[in-house]
Amino acid sequence: MGQSSSSARIAEELRREIAGLAAGSRLPSTRALVERFAASPVTVQHAVRALVREGLVESRPGAGTFVRRARPASRADLSWQTAALGAARAQGAVVGSTLQTPSDDVIALHSGYPVDDLLPVRAVQNALARAARTRSALDRPPASGLAELRSWFAEELAEATPATGSAPTAADVVVMPGGQSALSSVFRSLARPGDAIVMESPGYWGAIAAARQAGLEVVPVPRRPSPAPSTGHGWAAVDPVDLAETFERTRARLFYAMPHFANPTGTSWTEADATALLEVVRAHGAFLIEDDWAHDFALDAPVRPVATRDVDGHVVSVRSLTKSVSPAVRIAAVVARGAARSRILTDRVVDGLYVSGVLQTAALEVVSSPAWHPHLRRMREQLRTRRDALAGLVDELLPPGTLTSVPRGGLNLWLRLPDGVESTTYVEACARAGVLISPGPEWFPAEDPESHVRLNYSGPAPGRFEEAVRIMARELAGLQRLRER
Amino acid sequence: MGQSSSSARIAEELRREIAGLAAGSRLPSTRALVERFAASPVTVQHAVRALVREGLVESRPGAGTFVRRARPASRADLSWQTAALGAARAQGAVVGSTLQTPSDDVIALHSGYPVDDLLPVRAVQNALARAARTRSALDRPPASGLAELRSWFAEELAEATPATGSAPTAADVVVMPGGQSALSSVFRSLARPGDAIVMESPGYWGAIAAARQAGLEVVPVPRRPSPAPSTGHGWAAVDPVDLAETFERTRARLFYAMPHFANPTGTSWTEADATALLEVVRAHGAFLIEDDWAHDFALDAPVRPVATRDVDGHVVSVRSLTKSVSPAVRIAAVVARGAARSRILTDRVVDGLYVSGVLQTAALEVVSSPAWHPHLRRMREQLRTRRDALAGLVDELLPPGTLTSVPRGGLNLWLRLPDGVESTTYVEACARAGVLISPGPEWFPAEDPESHVRLNYSGPAPGRFEEAVRIMARELAGLQRLRER
Repeated sequence: MGQSSSSARIAEELRREIAGLAAGSRLPSTRALVERFAASPVTVQHAVRALVREGLVESRPGAGTFVRRARPASRADLSWQTAALGAARAQGAVVGSTLQTPSDDVIALHSGYPVDDLLPVRAVQNALARAARTRSALDRPPASGLAELRSWFAEELAEATPATGSAPTAADVVVMPGGQSALSSVFRSLARPGDAIVMESPGYWGAIAAARQAGLEVVPVPRRPSPAPSTGHGWAAVDPVDLAETFERTRARLFYAMPHFANPTGTSWTEADATALLEVVRAHGAFLIEDDWAHDFALDAPVRPVATRDVDGHVVSVRSLTKSVSPAVRIAAVVARGAARSRILTDRVVDGLYVSGVLQTAALEVVSSPAWHPHLRRMREQLRTRRDALAGLVDELLPPGTLTSVPRGGLNLWLRLPDGVESTTYVEACARAGVLISPGPEWFPAEDPESHVRLNYSGPAPGRFEEAVRIMARELAGLQRLRER
Repeated sequence: MGQSSSSARIAEELRREIAGLAAGSRLPSTRALVERFAASPVTVQHAVRALVREGLVESRPGAGTFVRRARPASRADLSWQTAALGAARAQGAVVGSTLQTPSDDVIALHSGYPVDDLLPVRAVQNALARAARTRSALDRPPASGLAELRSWFAEELAEATPATGSAPTAADVVVMPGGQSALSSVFRSLARPGDAIVMESPGYWGAIAAARQAGLEVVPVPRRPSPAPSTGHGWAAVDPVDLAETFERTRARLFYAMPHFANPTGTSWTEADATALLEVVRAHGAFLIEDDWAHDFALDAPVRPVATRDVDGHVVSVRSLTKSVSPAVRIAAVVARGAARSRILTDRVVDGLYVSGVLQTAALEVVSSPAWHPHLRRMREQLRTRRDALAGLVDELLPPGTLTSVPRGGLNLWLRLPDGVESTTYVEACARAGVLISPGPEWFPAEDPESHVRLNYSGPAPGRFEEAVRIMARELAGLQRLRER
């Protein structure tokens, strides 16, 4: 056997060995290899040099030869995964545009999260730092959440519950790591894959995505158009007759809704809507999943959650603190009764065992401090100013009828674009011109029969609202001119 | 109409109104009600007194009559939920006994979590406090996790990957809010309800529960018995032929395993096991979900994760920091490639949008500090001492063959009880006598053909190990005497 075939054999054997060695492992010395393979030093060195050329090992003069750090070479053939995984469950892009983090020079009206100036940042920092120093906060809390925090959530609902109602207690609450987790848990717990879930349309994109991920079929019920004073046409609650028909047609047992300051339309149910829709839910042996997302953003009048009308466990209520306390404090709660509550708790345990005690302790400190309500008042005052400014500019600078309504709470304006202006095209034109807004289709479980965009007025640059709306007006005019040609 | 029927009518109308009012709302004055109902003051007062007796309102002399706080009366009929919800998905108790929080006077050998003395508590407190003061930590991090933290997780695997392997990068990592969430996301993402998932038996109860909650059918593959030196019979890895047959029979695409220091048996795959089992997984176009739960608890020799052998995306690796850093820092990571990784990220976004930046920042600071490795060394030294002490006592004081093996890592000893001693009965007897241990059946997807219990040696009272094992011996003897009668 000649030197080169012999060195090839040695190299091959070493290659196999190297495959089993960690990076940095030392190869046997040339002398040891010479002995082991009964080959000449030249043959051995020839083999080792081949491995060096291949990048498998490196020689460090005086120290020896070492297995090299793996190259992050991800050119592997992963196509087998296509067969293993099959079609994806949630079709299309599930990550809403509201989650983008933009660069500083654009004007961001797309986000779903209030900017720091509106949040109790110092109180949150102090509460987190104090919680970190509290030994008990480092321990594993009960699966359903800290008792005091559950009491606080229950109390918030109980305070608004009339004497004829049935006020929740801490035993009805499950603490969740944020509102989105809460929705996912509730959908998984109260329905099975293939079941239908009824939703207001338009409605929250995160709920649509969570329901689809849980394998549910999202069945939209349209909001009714409602003539809004002066500014065009707005949106009202869904029609109880539509809801009843949908329950009967689909055999759905779940109705997900945002009864107050709905995202994106800003619509609130009237007292009559709440009574009628809850009656339909009860008559069909179904659950209303009330997403009370904007409880802390009630700008003109306080919220009375529909859950306060519930006497026999038909309402499952979700309330999150993430948007009003801090993005770092991902804490929400589900309030539910009976078997529904115990299924939701089971899902929570299986999905994540428990929620960090530090986050729960900090959240409780922030919301139960005497500074919390004064903070909420100041924040609402700022939000009112922002809303009125942005709504006024839209009303003044964009075509009549664009502003569908001035919502009494929440964080968003919902705009209807003139006929023939496609939402995504318009959003892209605005983004190129430095203004980020959200395309309407994300909020529709099916097609948007018209064309909408959402503006969030809690973003970073209220001083640039006018600049933003002027750009939006210019881009809109541009698209309309293009269309008329 | 007499006074009483007229007051009943007034009371009835007021009851309806009160149902729509928040607690603390003021009722109209007697004078206003007299006018409105065209009734005498006596009749009106009669009606109001009836409402006071019913607990709906309360009179505050000089101030008026107010709607009372709702009573937390949960005697409502919730039986309709039974029909709405149908049969529960996960059968039986899903909450493992390892999650119980015991009183101080018992000796707790049941928990899954290391006691504070073993954890870097001060480093965690400092890191959390510092993170709380860092503005960026309060912001919303990217959905896949902070880039630096993803790099750290990737680097940990890359360091053990040989040059012939394919080292992961930060782009392959998704940060998760704890190991249990990671498992739930992975199961939901890579399979559909009704699909089979193969698991080692016995295996981790939390994985069994998560798979069932995802609607998967858990198919157990038995570990092979292996004669353990001196102490009785232990457990080895599953047989590659068994695994291959199970894949073929069930058409499963997922194999969940703990290749190192498996919970509860302490078993580790040999190099040959890893090569053979991964080959079976590849040949069947399947995924190995490697739960590297005890990476930081490698007591006698470091872990080389099976993921380091993966070149084409067949291994999805899960690693959690909760047990080795702090129960408050619920941070884990999934490392996966290709479509699998993008499905898992989608599930993560839909399930919870993002993981708290404060927890991610604190976790990163703890594990990348120069004090981390010295801490790990000290912790392992303590765990070795605890393991050897408890194993020695079990060997000395319990019947021969009870200790199945002395695991080379992890936190647990797995005991086989003498024939005829039922696990749950024994666990209850020990609990009554003040020693908490875990019943074996929780770790079996199907029946346990023998009878086992698990002891955790990372709990609060290592000084009481001898007392605990003496009690266990006494209770075991008691049950055996009962049986012989």
